[in-house]
Amino acid sequence: MKNCLCLVITVCLTSGVSPLARQTFGSTPGVRLHNLMPVPESIEFKQGRLPFRSSFTTAITGPVDKRLEAAIDRAMRRLEGKTGLTLARGFVESSADATLQIECSGPGMAVQSPEEDESYSLDVDSACARLIAATTVGVIRGLETFLQLLEGGRDGEYFFPSVTVRDKPRFVWRGLLIDCCRHFQPIEVIKRNLDGMAAVKLNVLHWHLSEDQGFRVESKRFPKLQQMGSDGLFYSQQQIRDVINYARDRGIRVVPEFDMPGHITSWLVGHPELGSQPGPYHIERRWGVFNASLDPTRDHVYKVLDKFWGEIAALFPDPYMHIGGDENNGEDWTSNEKIKEFMEKKGIRGTQALQTYFNQRLLAILKKHGKKMVGWDEILQPDLPRDIVVQSWRGQKSLAEAAKKGYQGILSNGYYLDHMLSAATHYAVDPIAENSGLEPSQAGLVLGGEACMWGEYIGPETIDSRVWPRTAAIAERFWSPRSVKDAKDMYRRLERVSVELEEFGLRHNSDPDVLLRRLAGSTDTAAIKTLADVVEPVKHYVRGQAFPATQFTPLTRLVDAARPDSREARRFGRLVEEFLADAPRFSARRDELVEMLGRWRDIEPEFQIAVDQSPILDEVAPLALSLSKAADAGLEAVTFLRKQASAGVDWRDSKLKILSDASAPKGEVELAVISPLKALVVAASQ
Amino acid sequence: MKNCLCLVITVCLTSGVSPLARQTFGSTPGVRLHNLMPVPESIEFKQGRLPFRSSFTTAITGPVDKRLEAAIDRAMRRLEGKTGLTLARGFVESSADATLQIECSGPGMAVQSPEEDESYSLDVDSACARLIAATTVGVIRGLETFLQLLEGGRDGEYFFPSVTVRDKPRFVWRGLLIDCCRHFQPIEVIKRNLDGMAAVKLNVLHWHLSEDQGFRVESKRFPKLQQMGSDGLFYSQQQIRDVINYARDRGIRVVPEFDMPGHITSWLVGHPELGSQPGPYHIERRWGVFNASLDPTRDHVYKVLDKFWGEIAALFPDPYMHIGGDENNGEDWTSNEKIKEFMEKKGIRGTQALQTYFNQRLLAILKKHGKKMVGWDEILQPDLPRDIVVQSWRGQKSLAEAAKKGYQGILSNGYYLDHMLSAATHYAVDPIAENSGLEPSQAGLVLGGEACMWGEYIGPETIDSRVWPRTAAIAERFWSPRSVKDAKDMYRRLERVSVELEEFGLRHNSDPDVLLRRLAGSTDTAAIKTLADVVEPVKHYVRGQAFPATQFTPLTRLVDAARPDSREARRFGRLVEEFLADAPRFSARRDELVEMLGRWRDIEPEFQIAVDQSPILDEVAPLALSLSKAADAGLEAVTFLRKQASAGVDWRDSKLKILSDASAPKGEVELAVISPLKALVVAASQ
Repeated sequence: MKNCLCLVITVCLTSGVSPLARQTFGSTPGVRLHNLMPVPESIEFKQGRLPFRSSFTTAITGPVDKRLEAAIDRAMRRLEGKTGLTLARGFVESSADATLQIECSGPGMAVQSPEEDESYSLDVDSACARLIAATTVGVIRGLETFLQLLEGGRDGEYFFPSVTVRDKPRFVWRGLLIDCCRHFQPIEVIKRNLDGMAAVKLNVLHWHLSEDQGFRVESKRFPKLQQMGSDGLFYSQQQIRDVINYARDRGIRVVPEFDMPGHITSWLVGHPELGSQPGPYHIERRWGVFNASLDPTRDHVYKVLDKFWGEIAALFPDPYMHIGGDENNGEDWTSNEKIKEFMEKKGIRGTQALQTYFNQRLLAILKKHGKKMVGWDEILQPDLPRDIVVQSWRGQKSLAEAAKKGYQGILSNGYYLDHMLSAATHYAVDPIAENSGLEPSQAGLVLGGEACMWGEYIGPETIDSRVWPRTAAIAERFWSPRSVKDAKDMYRRLERVSVELEEFGLRHNSDPDVLLRRLAGSTDTAAIKTLADVVEPVKHYVRGQAFPATQFTPLTRLVDAARPDSREARRFGRLVEEFLADAPRFSARRDELVEMLGRWRDIEPEFQIAVDQSPILDEVAPLALSLSKAADAGLEAVTFLRKQASAGVDWRDSKLKILSDASAPKGEVELAVISPLKALVVAASQ
Repeated sequence: MKNCLCLVITVCLTSGVSPLARQTFGSTPGVRLHNLMPVPESIEFKQGRLPFRSSFTTAITGPVDKRLEAAIDRAMRRLEGKTGLTLARGFVESSADATLQIECSGPGMAVQSPEEDESYSLDVDSACARLIAATTVGVIRGLETFLQLLEGGRDGEYFFPSVTVRDKPRFVWRGLLIDCCRHFQPIEVIKRNLDGMAAVKLNVLHWHLSEDQGFRVESKRFPKLQQMGSDGLFYSQQQIRDVINYARDRGIRVVPEFDMPGHITSWLVGHPELGSQPGPYHIERRWGVFNASLDPTRDHVYKVLDKFWGEIAALFPDPYMHIGGDENNGEDWTSNEKIKEFMEKKGIRGTQALQTYFNQRLLAILKKHGKKMVGWDEILQPDLPRDIVVQSWRGQKSLAEAAKKGYQGILSNGYYLDHMLSAATHYAVDPIAENSGLEPSQAGLVLGGEACMWGEYIGPETIDSRVWPRTAAIAERFWSPRSVKDAKDMYRRLERVSVELEEFGLRHNSDPDVLLRRLAGSTDTAAIKTLADVVEPVKHYVRGQAFPATQFTPLTRLVDAARPDSREARRFGRLVEEFLADAPRFSARRDELVEMLGRWRDIEPEFQIAVDQSPILDEVAPLALSLSKAADAGLEAVTFLRKQASAGVDWRDSKLKILSDASAPKGEVELAVISPLKALVVAASQ
């Protein structure tokens, strides 16, 4: 697998390679490491570099539109921010005089769709950089690559390495779903995440806008929807238009989702007459699947939906509308006599068939308003036509089956950010499995994928650290060739991208510290940070099981400050691996390991002092103690290994017991360093 | 001075004092330290505590308005965030059942003014808390005090100590000026700063909205103002109204400033016909005082101003409008023959008199629109009536003179946040000097003061760390009794308030780290942070002198990440003081000192590695070297002191030379630890 990666990022280094290239990057001769994420389709480094100085200028060849100018302007401002240099504003007339020459054939589609041409080519030599694309979106993609190429040289000068890049996306639908229903997210959160998406070449914001727990859009036709279904937390139509323009400026489509017929409680608070039960309904505060469902048997419901989708279709220019369609349990249908009569009369067998009936009528409504329908797995029923798009939360197999039947699809299973899994886990999931058995034409029906940020446990202070930087790895999966899959190299580049994403005001690296200070009630967070850095929130759907939560539960505990995919734990894992692989007695890693373990062992009593001042930390106090004991076991193991003495079975078993006890979650976080510690203990007793 | 403070915050501790009170707070028996900022007029701690549990409820007695309910709701959400506990939403009917009983006589003024009653009383005992105020604004002030009283107990429970607080502000005008012209600040920046202001009981946002460098408000009557004078960076009228409502919800008035007749360039880009020279004019990008000025001789100008101020007066409900009036140099008047003729004809002698003529006509316009006029020092000329308010950037003396002449005034001199001085420096400035010589009735004309955040060197990423936490100390100066002035205790409380302010999304503690990561291009910022923590931006108007800057200069250098009033330097200063006061040989502070100095000495070569990757750091590389050498001198001094040996004069002089060299600014930052180091060196050579 590593070879595949090298094939892509390897430089065609000839004998004329500059010493600098070797000097600046990596240690493997012949391979030039770079910081690009996603990795482009092809990249070839050459000798030389283009200096970045305040005399840097840009020229545009071809038709100029405002979106193009604005994108270049944003890129220049970011280059200024990175380097501290001030550039002249505006553009130079003659391409020959410009440091960056941009050739764009045209603005691209009036309304961006999956058919938009996003390809570009970028050539940098020591005289200038040339970025060529058929559309403004292509230029936008190329500019991100260009910015990621910037490096600082030891001579005190920034530069772009000489390079040839040819690039286009592997998948045309590369999305991020943000659920703003279970918890509302202010507009500035959406905007900074759109910037982050553009930075890693994602092109679809799937905006989940209605749920049992909230209806988040201003409807002028049915104002009771937001007035009674949102607690006042909704987006005005002007804000929506603002977000759509903001997204379009960054080459991102906005696909709204209004989930139906289930996940509908918030609608029914103001419009109980649309429901399958008489109501009254209240905004749902708990999490889970609920019974509330639109009544699919009444013409009035379709009349309302026609007007509603008409309003939404006019508000959102995207050709696709997402109708949800998931997790409708049918309970409210089968307990309604009139609905049962309707089914008998029409010969509709079972609630699944009734939902297909509903979907067919809904599809007609969407078509009337000129839109294509997207829905979750469940919409895939025999009687639906081939021009719908299926989004799979069930998996690659389900998606492949849909493709075999001729349906277009996008994969979300494997990309659920709320599962709190590692970037590497998501990175390993390909929208088309190696063994999918799909014909090329069928494989072409798999449009791409979407990372999903479901909203049960995210607020404005925590969403960024759940979305980023992991989503950058998923974005690479969607954009780069299948062969790009070296997780270690992905993590190396992710580290740098993570810092670059902060340029947009994204707070994934800073808000966890804010929360730690709040937990401590102080700027002195050393002990709490030591623990927070080696724990992760519990995975999958474990959160909320021991501590039932609602929409009102504050998101300010250690579990909210803790990040998925602990960097510190990964670093520890690498150290242990290298230490054990090396002759442990002479390992260069030993000092680092001992320093880390010593810091963990000594977490008490400072942690206890913090707990004394902050009862909110009580729940994780046992974990600090566990970490201390576990680290102690690790230190003993290192000593045995250093002395090349076997610790013996009794010692091993007692330590493994300690580690096993330490692996139990507390306060919905768990230590992420147990498995390398076990490896140390086992090695020491062999 | 310390005694004065104790008088205020001392508890009337009788023999019945609870052991807990002594245990939880401080070490001086008889004094109960607290975290309140600003310190209330009077506070008396009693035995007992009110537990804060999820059963906590609130009741309102008296007329209920939405603003009151919203303020209480926000306070409850913050309590949830601090403690992790989930409270029931809404209010309980019967006051007797409520943990927090709020008695509010009425909503207060329809449009808040300096006459608003902001007083409140707060009584907490072990059964409940009672907050009584005449107005909603009084309740808002009291809630902030209540929240600051929250503490965590060792028994794992949060609580409010039993206490009696009687409180009202010393000054009625307690403002923060934010200049959004030299650099634009998005709405969310304004909002989070309004939250911060409310947290420390400030009550005026002085919004500086037009300048040579930008016109920041949508005018519907004169749209060319924003269309041509703002680069598209302005607030829509809807956003302005939104901010005003947001501020009113927090008991904050919004006073707009449109500076005239000078500081007017951005107006004249679209309306050159209003200027004293034919133009054309361009948005000014540099800093300083410019010649552009309205033509005060033409009736057309006053017709436009009448319409303009009419529009503004309708948009901003506040009774006061700020007309600037400062730094009009008269150059464009004296070089205009028509203006000179006008002056001769009217018998107006000198440009100052001409400005008085302008101000009188402007005053008539404001009066016509029902507004009172505020202006900077320069508006104070013999012929102006007594009902204007003078804002003094010149000083207490100038303010006192105005008061003696019967003018109301507010002080800003001494509170310029862009001067990058310490919180203690601002804290020591009283709006009424001890020796002002003002009669009580004259002193009453001093309405208060305003901290000023001028905008030459602040962007959305840096404004918070310039405003906060220092402004909290200034807020205390404006609210608390004159006798509250112990800087050491102020800093103790400021530390905690600084963390609390982050609840509003303020980024004063987190954005500096974001900038350091960007500077490093990495999350590994240890070496850069070591330097950043002990430097401060150059003071007063030194910035920009060696490195001329414009509106376009990026604000991403180390000087932008560095914070005024370095905490680390203050900590070092205290350590040195305690070390030298103590018998140095046995000082408990020695280890801490040696650890700190060792870390500074060892900053190289790691810092150099960072510089190699980030040329933007080149400019401060010499400072890292200076710090290393200076720390080495400090370590030697500590050794001499430990050994009780005198280092001798030659040693001293060579070290003082090193320190003196190290004190030179580089890259517009300077080491903030030189003077304690000098003290160490001098002590070691005695």
